[in-house]
Amino acid sequence: MERKEISKAVITRLPRYYRYLDELLEEGVERISSGELSKRMKVTASQIRQDLNNFGGFGQQGYGYNVEYLYEEIGKILGLDRRHSLIIIGSGNLGQAIANYGNFERRGFVVNGMFDVDRELIGSTVRGIRIRGMEELEDFIRDNDVQIAALTIPKTQAPAVADRLVAAGVKAIWNFAHIDLTVPDDVVVENVHLSESLMRLSYLFCSKRDGKHKRTGGMEES
Amino acid sequence: MERKEISKAVITRLPRYYRYLDELLEEGVERISSGELSKRMKVTASQIRQDLNNFGGFGQQGYGYNVEYLYEEIGKILGLDRRHSLIIIGSGNLGQAIANYGNFERRGFVVNGMFDVDRELIGSTVRGIRIRGMEELEDFIRDNDVQIAALTIPKTQAPAVADRLVAAGVKAIWNFAHIDLTVPDDVVVENVHLSESLMRLSYLFCSKRDGKHKRTGGMEES
Repeated sequence: MERKEISKAVITRLPRYYRYLDELLEEGVERISSGELSKRMKVTASQIRQDLNNFGGFGQQGYGYNVEYLYEEIGKILGLDRRHSLIIIGSGNLGQAIANYGNFERRGFVVNGMFDVDRELIGSTVRGIRIRGMEELEDFIRDNDVQIAALTIPKTQAPAVADRLVAAGVKAIWNFAHIDLTVPDDVVVENVHLSESLMRLSYLFCSKRDGKHKRTGGMEES
Repeated sequence: MERKEISKAVITRLPRYYRYLDELLEEGVERISSGELSKRMKVTASQIRQDLNNFGGFGQQGYGYNVEYLYEEIGKILGLDRRHSLIIIGSGNLGQAIANYGNFERRGFVVNGMFDVDRELIGSTVRGIRIRGMEELEDFIRDNDVQIAALTIPKTQAPAVADRLVAAGVKAIWNFAHIDLTVPDDVVVENVHLSESLMRLSYLFCSKRDGKHKRTGGMEES
C-alpha cells in the first residue's frame, strides 16, 4: 500500500489509538464512529478523522470504522505484525520491570537476552531470561538477530554501550539513560527520560496551584 | 514575576534545557550563547531564543546566557526549588526502580512512602522506605502532606486507586498504568505509557528499514 509521509505528531498518537481499539475488541465492539471514539479518547472527532485519513481512510460514511480492520492496519503500520528480538542492557529494577512485562511479548517484542556488569546478577534469570555479562554482548546480538536494545543503565555508561550496540548491528535503541545518544542515521532512538517526565508533572502541579492562589512570588505560605 | 501563558510544547522542552544546563554547570561553564547551546542540544538557535524568551529573555545580546541564572530560573518554573512529598503505589520492579533513583531526591522529589497489596512485600524496605499495605494509604497521605503519587500498578486496578488518591487530597498523579485516568480539574496527570513508547520505536525502526528497501508488502524476506 502506498502511503504519504505521516507527521511525527500523528505517529505519536497511533499507539494510543491502538490501545483503545484493543480495548474495544476485548469488549466485542465491531464498529465505531469517529464521534463515539472521540468521546472515549477525549480528542475531537475531526482530529480522529484527520489522523486516520493518513492511512487511506478506513472509515465508511455512516458505518463508522471497522474496529478489527483498523486495529490490524495500525498494528501493521507500527510494525506489530512482526516479531522483534529485544535485549535489555542493565538488569536492575528497571530492566527487570521491562523483562517482566508480558504484554510486550503479546505485541511481538520478545526479550531474549539481558545483560549487566554486576557479577552478582550475571547467571541468574528473570522470567526465564538469563542475565549475561557484557563480554557476551556482540556475539549474542549477531547470533540472535537482535534488532532492539533497551538501555537501562546509568548515563555515564550509556554512550559507550550505545556505540557497541550500533557497531554490532542494533538498529533501534530504547533509551532510558538520562542522556541524548548520538547515533548514525540508520539507527533510531526512542527516549524515556523519567526525570523529565517528573519535572513536567511538577510544572503542571505548581502552575495549577499557583494559578489558583494568584502567583505572588513564593507560595509555600498560602 | 508576571509570565505569559507558556505553550505545552515549550513546557515539554524545559526539562531538557534544565538537564543540559545542569551538565554545563558541572563542567564549570558560566555563559553560553544560543548558538553553542544549539550545537549541543541539536535544536536551532532560533528555537532556543524563542523558547527562553517565554521567561522574559535571560540572554544578553553578545554575552549569551548566564548558565546558573537560567538553570535556577527554569528550576523555579518547573517547581524544583520546592520539596515535593511523593509516594509510590505498586512496589514491584518499576516502583522500586523509581524509589532507588536518587537523582529525583536531588531535584526535590522525596519518596517517603511505598504501598502494595502483596503481603510478602509489605513491611520490607527499599532504600530505607517502608512498604505499607493499601489500608494505610489515606492516613499516610493526610499525615505526610503527600502531593504526588506514582502509580506503578496494573491498569485494571489503576482507576479505583486513582479515585482513592484524589479523594485523599493528592493533586498530581504520575501514571505508569496503561490506561487514561479520569480525574477532577484540579488534579494533574502525567502519563508514562511504556508500551506506547516501544510501539513508536517499532514504527520508526520499521519505516526506516522499509524506506531503504522500498516497501512491497511484507519485508521479512528482504
